[in-house]
Amino acid sequence: MKARLSTVALSLMCGFSAQSMASEVDTAQLRELSRQFFQPIPQVEVLVQERQVDPTKVELGRWLFFEPRLSASHIISCNTCHSVGTGGADNIPVSIGHGWQKGPRNSPTVLNAVFNAAQFWDGRAADLAEQAKGPIQASVEMNATPEHVEVTLRSIPEYVELFAKAFPQDQEPVSFDNMATAIEAFEATLITPNARFDEFLAGKDTLSVTEIAGLNNFINKGCVACHSGINFGGQGYFPFGVVKRPGADILPVEDRGRFMVTNTASDEYVFRAGPLRNIALTAPYFHSGEVWDLEEAVAIMGTSQLGTELTDDEVKSITAFLHTLTGDQPEVVYPTLPASTKDTPRPSPM
Amino acid sequence: MKARLSTVALSLMCGFSAQSMASEVDTAQLRELSRQFFQPIPQVEVLVQERQVDPTKVELGRWLFFEPRLSASHIISCNTCHSVGTGGADNIPVSIGHGWQKGPRNSPTVLNAVFNAAQFWDGRAADLAEQAKGPIQASVEMNATPEHVEVTLRSIPEYVELFAKAFPQDQEPVSFDNMATAIEAFEATLITPNARFDEFLAGKDTLSVTEIAGLNNFINKGCVACHSGINFGGQGYFPFGVVKRPGADILPVEDRGRFMVTNTASDEYVFRAGPLRNIALTAPYFHSGEVWDLEEAVAIMGTSQLGTELTDDEVKSITAFLHTLTGDQPEVVYPTLPASTKDTPRPSPM
Repeated sequence: MKARLSTVALSLMCGFSAQSMASEVDTAQLRELSRQFFQPIPQVEVLVQERQVDPTKVELGRWLFFEPRLSASHIISCNTCHSVGTGGADNIPVSIGHGWQKGPRNSPTVLNAVFNAAQFWDGRAADLAEQAKGPIQASVEMNATPEHVEVTLRSIPEYVELFAKAFPQDQEPVSFDNMATAIEAFEATLITPNARFDEFLAGKDTLSVTEIAGLNNFINKGCVACHSGINFGGQGYFPFGVVKRPGADILPVEDRGRFMVTNTASDEYVFRAGPLRNIALTAPYFHSGEVWDLEEAVAIMGTSQLGTELTDDEVKSITAFLHTLTGDQPEVVYPTLPASTKDTPRPSPM
Repeated sequence: MKARLSTVALSLMCGFSAQSMASEVDTAQLRELSRQFFQPIPQVEVLVQERQVDPTKVELGRWLFFEPRLSASHIISCNTCHSVGTGGADNIPVSIGHGWQKGPRNSPTVLNAVFNAAQFWDGRAADLAEQAKGPIQASVEMNATPEHVEVTLRSIPEYVELFAKAFPQDQEPVSFDNMATAIEAFEATLITPNARFDEFLAGKDTLSVTEIAGLNNFINKGCVACHSGINFGGQGYFPFGVVKRPGADILPVEDRGRFMVTNTASDEYVFRAGPLRNIALTAPYFHSGEVWDLEEAVAIMGTSQLGTELTDDEVKSITAFLHTLTGDQPEVVYPTLPASTKDTPRPSPM
């Protein structure tokens, strides 16, 4: 495959003449190859139908995603660290939670997270429902308990009613587990179709010469080995520093990654390959959130994972290509949340 | 006026027979009287047209209202303490800001705030634009500076473009002042028409017997003296404890209210009369945010401001009436905010 493509790569990277040399055949070949590695993000309606996502659960999940009373302080919601307005993340190095405590890792985007094989940087949650339960209970994040959540939601008639509609088979519809299931349903709708790359995949000539060169480099230089599939990552686990470990500023020694989940020596400093959809919107990068510049992140990946010093042109073209992975951001109407009652637990900010 | 109405009041508060006695004439009289004290919230389109609110400024203001990069930490926006999903406030005793510091007072609702004569509990800002500049700079809130805001917004091309559209006459459209003007334009659209009381004002029989009794009490007992106009308050300043000061838990001695603005002895413990629209959504109450129960708040107002022990029935009916002031909550689409660039200042969480 590499041999076949190198013609494209060469023809694209020889300066001015590249444009004329990027013949239709070459682009068609690259498109064909891309289809073997990547899949487009579907339209929301298609996903909802294919996965039979229940609209009532989605509606309930929308309330819960923005619900600050799930936190002990009543001021932190899922959206605080996974804001739908800023690429599905908070775009600071590590999240700030209850009591202004700093979390251990950079907040991953919620956008397209439904397509990841597992959740969190170490993949410790199998799906979005399991994931949703984590930050709510983490003392450095929302600092609540399942009991707090259930008592809170049961104290508010509108929630009781909507849970009953969303989970009509359940004897006790308002539960921590059902809360997570509803949040998962809403999050499944937070996908970003129509990225320029996806239109390219579909057969349109939406990419510039530089972006085509970047795609070619992305495949031929080996980025695709970890970052493939519908999400350009999020499917497997790899050591950060396959070839050369980056400095402790970027790879802090105390965070041993997936080792902390599996307790297996070979999992030291192993992390989930970050999904690259909308990556241009969610600096800073890596689990440590210490790299602000996407070009720098690409260069670091070259040395640490591929064992190669990417040239300036390669870095720039790959970065340009990554920008084509930005899709239509979800349009979310802010939910009108029901008022607390006398039985609703009061906030405990400290 | 009181004499005229007392018939209505009496007829309404004698138990079961009240319903039949609340003749059309009595209700009509009460409605007529109410029209002298109160005005309905207009539909958004009407307000926008009457005040010539510029839709481009509204759109820019929507971005800015949800823009966490206006804060030093990049995690606090206007919506953090004035959430459009929870009655326009944060519904905790006092707001929590930068570094998890507690602010001095309960966050007032942004909903219908455009109709207030002045902003803040002590009225120290003449309008919403002036108000918007306060929390952004307050070290216990967003902890930023006008320079931080301007450098940030100028670093993001999409903002530069939208500011230029919203302020086409300005040589330097991106400015702290214009930011405030745009936020004010957006906030002017955050109004809540169609409250049941407003429908009553318009001639419909939307209020129950108890609510009618509550309205009657609200007027005849004297609540209306401070809480009148379109917002049922927000128009004038009054001492908290006209007749009897509440305890220090509710009226902390160190917060001397408007005195801190005017330095005039007669302004000690003087506060703006809280606007009561949507009051059922925004517990806890008063500037100290120490009272969670609306009935308790009503009873406290009786003793502290009116010098009367309201009966249980009076408290309950007034509270029931206050619930009729909840209008249609604004439907706000979460803005998709543009990405930072290399020139965007990074967050300084501490």
